[in-house]
Amino acid sequence: MAMTGVLRPGHVQLRVMNLDDAVRHYRDIMGLTETGRDAEGRVYLKCRDEIDHHSVVLREADCAGLDFIGFKVLDEATLDRLEADLRAHGLETTRLPAGELLETGERVRFQVPSGHWFELYAKKTAVGNGCGLVDPTPWAPENKRGMAPLRLDHALLYGPNIGAVQKLFTEVLGFTLVERVLNPEGSANLIIFLNCSIKSHDIAFAEYPEPGKLHHCSFLMESWEDVLRAGDIMSMNKVPVDIGPTRHGVTRGRTIYAWDPSGNRFETFKEDRQPYPDHAPLTWTFEALGAGGGLDYVQRKLHETFLTVVT
Amino acid sequence: MAMTGVLRPGHVQLRVMNLDDAVRHYRDIMGLTETGRDAEGRVYLKCRDEIDHHSVVLREADCAGLDFIGFKVLDEATLDRLEADLRAHGLETTRLPAGELLETGERVRFQVPSGHWFELYAKKTAVGNGCGLVDPTPWAPENKRGMAPLRLDHALLYGPNIGAVQKLFTEVLGFTLVERVLNPEGSANLIIFLNCSIKSHDIAFAEYPEPGKLHHCSFLMESWEDVLRAGDIMSMNKVPVDIGPTRHGVTRGRTIYAWDPSGNRFETFKEDRQPYPDHAPLTWTFEALGAGGGLDYVQRKLHETFLTVVT
Amino acid sequence: MAMTGVLRPGHVQLRVMNLDDAVRHYRDIMGLTETGRDAEGRVYLKCRDEIDHHSVVLREADCAGLDFIGFKVLDEATLDRLEADLRAHGLETTRLPAGELLETGERVRFQVPSGHWFELYAKKTAVGNGCGLVDPTPWAPENKRGMAPLRLDHALLYGPNIGAVQKLFTEVLGFTLVERVLNPEGSANLIIFLNCSIKSHDIAFAEYPEPGKLHHCSFLMESWEDVLRAGDIMSMNKVPVDIGPTRHGVTRGRTIYAWDPSGNRFETFKEDRQPYPDHAPLTWTFEALGAGGGLDYVQRKLHETFLTVVT
Amino acid sequence: MAMTGVLRPGHVQLRVMNLDDAVRHYRDIMGLTETGRDAEGRVYLKCRDEIDHHSVVLREADCAGLDFIGFKVLDEATLDRLEADLRAHGLETTRLPAGELLETGERVRFQVPSGHWFELYAKKTAVGNGCGLVDPTPWAPENKRGMAPLRLDHALLYGPNIGAVQKLFTEVLGFTLVERVLNPEGSANLIIFLNCSIKSHDIAFAEYPEPGKLHHCSFLMESWEDVLRAGDIMSMNKVPVDIGPTRHGVTRGRTIYAWDPSGNRFETFKEDRQPYPDHAPLTWTFEALGAGGGLDYVQRKLHETFLTVVT
Repeated sequence: MAMTGVLRPGHVQLRVMNLDDAVRHYRDIMGLTETGRDAEGRVYLKCRDEIDHHSVVLREADCAGLDFIGFKVLDEATLDRLEADLRAHGLETTRLPAGELLETGERVRFQVPSGHWFELYAKKTAVGNGCGLVDPTPWAPENKRGMAPLRLDHALLYGPNIGAVQKLFTEVLGFTLVERVLNPEGSANLIIFLNCSIKSHDIAFAEYPEPGKLHHCSFLMESWEDVLRAGDIMSMNKVPVDIGPTRHGVTRGRTIYAWDPSGNRFETFKEDRQPYPDHAPLTWTFEALGAGGGLDYVQRKLHETFLTVVT
Repeated sequence: MAMTGVLRPGHVQLRVMNLDDAVRHYRDIMGLTETGRDAEGRVYLKCRDEIDHHSVVLREADCAGLDFIGFKVLDEATLDRLEADLRAHGLETTRLPAGELLETGERVRFQVPSGHWFELYAKKTAVGNGCGLVDPTPWAPENKRGMAPLRLDHALLYGPNIGAVQKLFTEVLGFTLVERVLNPEGSANLIIFLNCSIKSHDIAFAEYPEPGKLHHCSFLMESWEDVLRAGDIMSMNKVPVDIGPTRHGVTRGRTIYAWDPSGNRFETFKEDRQPYPDHAPLTWTFEALGAGGGLDYVQRKLHETFLTVVT
Repeated sequence: MAMTGVLRPGHVQLRVMNLDDAVRHYRDIMGLTETGRDAEGRVYLKCRDEIDHHSVVLREADCAGLDFIGFKVLDEATLDRLEADLRAHGLETTRLPAGELLETGERVRFQVPSGHWFELYAKKTAVGNGCGLVDPTPWAPENKRGMAPLRLDHALLYGPNIGAVQKLFTEVLGFTLVERVLNPEGSANLIIFLNCSIKSHDIAFAEYPEPGKLHHCSFLMESWEDVLRAGDIMSMNKVPVDIGPTRHGVTRGRTIYAWDPSGNRFETFKEDRQPYPDHAPLTWTFEALGAGGGLDYVQRKLHETFLTVVT
Repeated sequence: MAMTGVLRPGHVQLRVMNLDDAVRHYRDIMGLTETGRDAEGRVYLKCRDEIDHHSVVLREADCAGLDFIGFKVLDEATLDRLEADLRAHGLETTRLPAGELLETGERVRFQVPSGHWFELYAKKTAVGNGCGLVDPTPWAPENKRGMAPLRLDHALLYGPNIGAVQKLFTEVLGFTLVERVLNPEGSANLIIFLNCSIKSHDIAFAEYPEPGKLHHCSFLMESWEDVLRAGDIMSMNKVPVDIGPTRHGVTRGRTIYAWDPSGNRFETFKEDRQPYPDHAPLTWTFEALGAGGGLDYVQRKLHETFLTVVT
């Protein structure tokens, strides 16, 4: 968690074009657990090692994409303080009432300069990971289904003004710039990877003319073997795969990119870095994103979909 | 890192009874890189994915054990603030001058109620992990030698008064109680696992009559395969092994415990949990430490050395 | 397969003291598929990557142990030829009629000098591994349950006269001596590992005064990760574990030994050797079986159960 | 090994266009051990778990490709018998004298209908895998360098008349058809996978108008982790990668295809099947080679290089 009290990406609300297909994808193929449906028809799911009620919310809509992403903060006092800090930084914030998302407390929502909607919240009902709190098991067999990701890990978002976004996340919310890819001219950052933890990123942004776009949501796998197993399951279920399995040079993560039935890209991901805020950020030249293996370390090529396909 | 600005265990100084044997063990068998020797004859080493100058310092002495363990903090201001907080908590603190350890800034040293010497410091020269800062490689082949741990991960210390220790670490230094083992009566904690990150522990303490004892220093491995590879290398080099390879129920980590030539226990360790401060701590009954697999999840037994052999 | 046409260990019939408990163990915990029950009440099971109808047959009895082990041979002509060869070697053989085991052709049964009952057979109904014969999937999700071993791999049998047994298997049946452990005096083999393939062993025998004893049946796992996963599942289900997870020095295999509810030892095993008949056999001194890591390469110790606990 | 006494692919002689570059690739990057050079300037290398003197012979030439591939047979008597069988089948055979390849006995050479030169031999000096024959270690650290493949595993060859080739290998040499890909019309086999063991293939052939072409030589890796590690090393050394890491649907193997400096494709490969001669062969439709994941199970696409780039 960041020293400001921002803990982690706690939920994403995704727009899907057919709810049944989406549920089949996230619940039956990926293996998330459905934890609820609300009056609006939204479906709530969680990954097998998450404690809180949900991390993925699916909403049927006419176009795919990300409605918002929420970060959990330590407590209500932190929420109030960060809300004040966001306003002091010049952002407008709105409070959504507790219960607007199932089992979730009040949320402070704001739009960042890239056009994405973020929210902070301090409360969500702990439903547990099935292992118990006393003499726990290391994993719960009944939750190890499908691709069986451990957790929602991060998201990569495409939109304009990522310089201003970086300033907001590092100066107000306490994130750290861990890694970055320069634009072709080397004059500014094209992609920034920010953490509020010792993960290689909790959120990433790429400079892109259209605001509010989703590149992918990433799910943490237990091992490189499980990344391939996820790839097998994608293939068995005809899930269209974009890139991988391979290693990203950027973040060193082991990865597969694929698409859900609405075209929202998701990632099955395993990493082993522990970047701390006292570590200098790593820099990738634009050329190295492709030819240097930044995107695909083994293939050393820039898959064209990476810079162009978003929802 | 904790919200107080405590980042991570940054170094341990170990007493070893024969320096040459110890260097052979940590450098040649484990595969740490020797980064320096000082006028006192101490040998400095680092793990392959660590950025700072050293994480292990070996000092020749008449008896084995831990001289001190140092935690890096965010910056000098944090160091000053935490020093004040420690004093306000009633602890005596001493400043060691910059350079007393090679390439290391001023250190604030204090003794915790279990008799162990801790120190905080804000500066240590970044020597890098050999991968570079621009278009980095995922790992540096020349540093992948021996067991090739990624990082110093944590230590488990034995001594009295761990209730007071817990209070100090959680209330002053900002650590979180992640997991605990109850004593046989269930009346108090026998072992506490504390993090200042999202690792399962950055430091752990067990209640023990004798103060200042070391149970083990732990080194992070890249995978369960690498844990076995480390075990193979231990066997090839006749490194005496205590427990493992197996899974700890506590922390869910995959582990081997073994001893260095002086009898200091070390661990090769791989874990996949991400416990956050909003997660309820996990509790193990004393019975379950053995029969419930807390120590050895596969064998479900309490290896007798676990509670008795320390340095 | 051996050049004589002996293919592989195709089935074991195990005596279990409570059939329901045994079925729960082999089917529900280990994850074998139940493929039939016969009029005698025997239960037939297969592993997930086996093609033939069954590899494990459970028979309720008053004492645990191995009734017999069957090796599949290439065809009926091979069966006839090997039967003649066995008789020429001085062994008595009996033909069991087709159908005496479900979906299995005629079997040629004989007792080897260690007191164990072996049989050869050429026919067993192919039921497939669930992946299909045209455009197959790499694995069948519905069959990946429990510990999910790929195949019955080998058995280790204890009994007298293993010199004569070795002669029989190498000279008549075409097996190769791959590895051996000498007795304490170094005067004869204590354990012999024989293959009829390029596996490290298809059958092994240890010299032991009592005839016809079973040390363990071994099941092949897909990876070292899956060996630990099997260990987790053992622990979750209170399956008593004997040794491991660790590496055997002998065979280099990665292993856990555990016991079924009747006390029959079984192994979850992964190996990577490919010993061919032109390779010199490997020899282990008795001392090295323990202190040299022959049994437990990481721990380098002779777990006392290894030489004493059989069924 | 086949029941005819054919054991395994024992060596390939590759044409390389710059010997120094090739040695750097196979020895320094892949990590094979150089075991000799002969008067003709050929360089001999072996993989770390091979016992015999060499498995790869490099010959400098004007164009890349495969000079010949040699299969080891059980003994001299087998060699004589198979030579007679080959002649009886209508093939011309030639004896190359012992010593023509370093440390290698007489070789029986013949050309198969696809235009490739094969040879059989019974003798090659055993130099060992560095682990010893008495109380051996599981692996030899000094031989675990670079990508560190365990063994030469198989080759895929392109040429005409693979129907006749299949007949030769199955009827004369005792190989088994394990898997096959149909041509687009479904009227004949496009690719055949044959084993003389329980590997998924020891040799494979694809129908192709030009005779004598090499698609790839394959090297066996210890694990899927080691396949990625090999990919990392390829990238670090700018070895051009063709496909992967991924899983082949055909053979279920885990794979990377890449090219040596002369353009000879090689594979780092890990598989877990054990196909026996009593198992029905698996059939892939041509469409499924691409869209069904036969070539790339995760991506389900037919990389165009697969059918077109050979040496």
